[in-house]
Amino acid sequence: MTKGAETRAAILDEAIAIASQVGFDALTIGQLAERTDMSKSGLFAHFKSKEQLQLQALERARERFIDVVVRPALATRRGEKRARALFDGWLAWIEGALPGGCVFIAAAAEVDDRPGPLREAVVRHERDLMEMITTVAGTAVDEGEWRTDLDLDQFGFEMYGVLLAHHHAFRLMHDARAIERTRAAFESLVARSRARSDAIT
Amino acid sequence: MTKGAETRAAILDEAIAIASQVGFDALTIGQLAERTDMSKSGLFAHFKSKEQLQLQALERARERFIDVVVRPALATRRGEKRARALFDGWLAWIEGALPGGCVFIAAAAEVDDRPGPLREAVVRHERDLMEMITTVAGTAVDEGEWRTDLDLDQFGFEMYGVLLAHHHAFRLMHDARAIERTRAAFESLVARSRARSDAIT
Repeated sequence: MTKGAETRAAILDEAIAIASQVGFDALTIGQLAERTDMSKSGLFAHFKSKEQLQLQALERARERFIDVVVRPALATRRGEKRARALFDGWLAWIEGALPGGCVFIAAAAEVDDRPGPLREAVVRHERDLMEMITTVAGTAVDEGEWRTDLDLDQFGFEMYGVLLAHHHAFRLMHDARAIERTRAAFESLVARSRARSDAIT
Repeated sequence: MTKGAETRAAILDEAIAIASQVGFDALTIGQLAERTDMSKSGLFAHFKSKEQLQLQALERARERFIDVVVRPALATRRGEKRARALFDGWLAWIEGALPGGCVFIAAAAEVDDRPGPLREAVVRHERDLMEMITTVAGTAVDEGEWRTDLDLDQFGFEMYGVLLAHHHAFRLMHDARAIERTRAAFESLVARSRARSDAIT
């Protein structure tokens, strides 16, 4: 990375840390200036508008998600092992990648009723995530580990539901058994996805 | 209801409609004054502070949730039928009770990193909801329809995950198949909860 790209990444990392805690709406150039010891006018010259800052922060979060969750999963053997790696990476992302939890879940709640570029960017990202889940689940079908009639979109929907329930139990409810409940739900989903011969019933 | 209570309920209904769309943080006495044609000073005299307005709006949302979701479920026969009624009422709540969707999901995303009375109220409410699910699921066990070894807390966790996934698919993604996916996930959960003799495998 060039020096400029490094500075930009560091500023945006601070921006997504703030957004994970207070949301994208409350993320302002003024607040970012305070936290990064940079001048407000310098940041403003760089990002032009609050919306540009939000969009670039979201893009940076996407890069971080790929590093923390997607890349390690894709480095794992195709099949159920890879689906498990994706799930584990995602849990780590929710639990500790940013101080306020998953910034995409925070963004989703904010933008769902507000048309505009930020909403479109969040939806595009979520669509990519869903396709990532179905593609990885598809490798387990290809490898003969999971049922050939598995509905991959349904798998994706249910896996995402488990992740959302984890975020809720862990971050809002501070439920000491959150991880145990989450793993049990995922194991049940995996068992139901397996080829009949090794189905756990 | 007395005239005063009616007015209060009407104002708070407007407050939760706003909060469902923009969140509790962006809900201000000024904005509420505009939407209700009441004076800001009158509203301020009544609610004293933004926090009191937020807390009373959350309490009003809780009353509405009981009317729309809990009461009809409890009027249904104990057992699986009641669990289905609870789930159906909840879907209706997410899809259409308020213009911006479920106000509790909106509140959860806002308060999870912010200690204080609003967070405590949201957590209390969510705990009640979870107990409502486990109690209703328990009636299906008592009636002999569901397995005696069913883990009720796990059932609650997974049902809530399905509801969160529905909110996400329906409100953010505008997924035309959201309801179909949601119902399939719930049917799978019900089938896994049934007593072995009528288990669908």
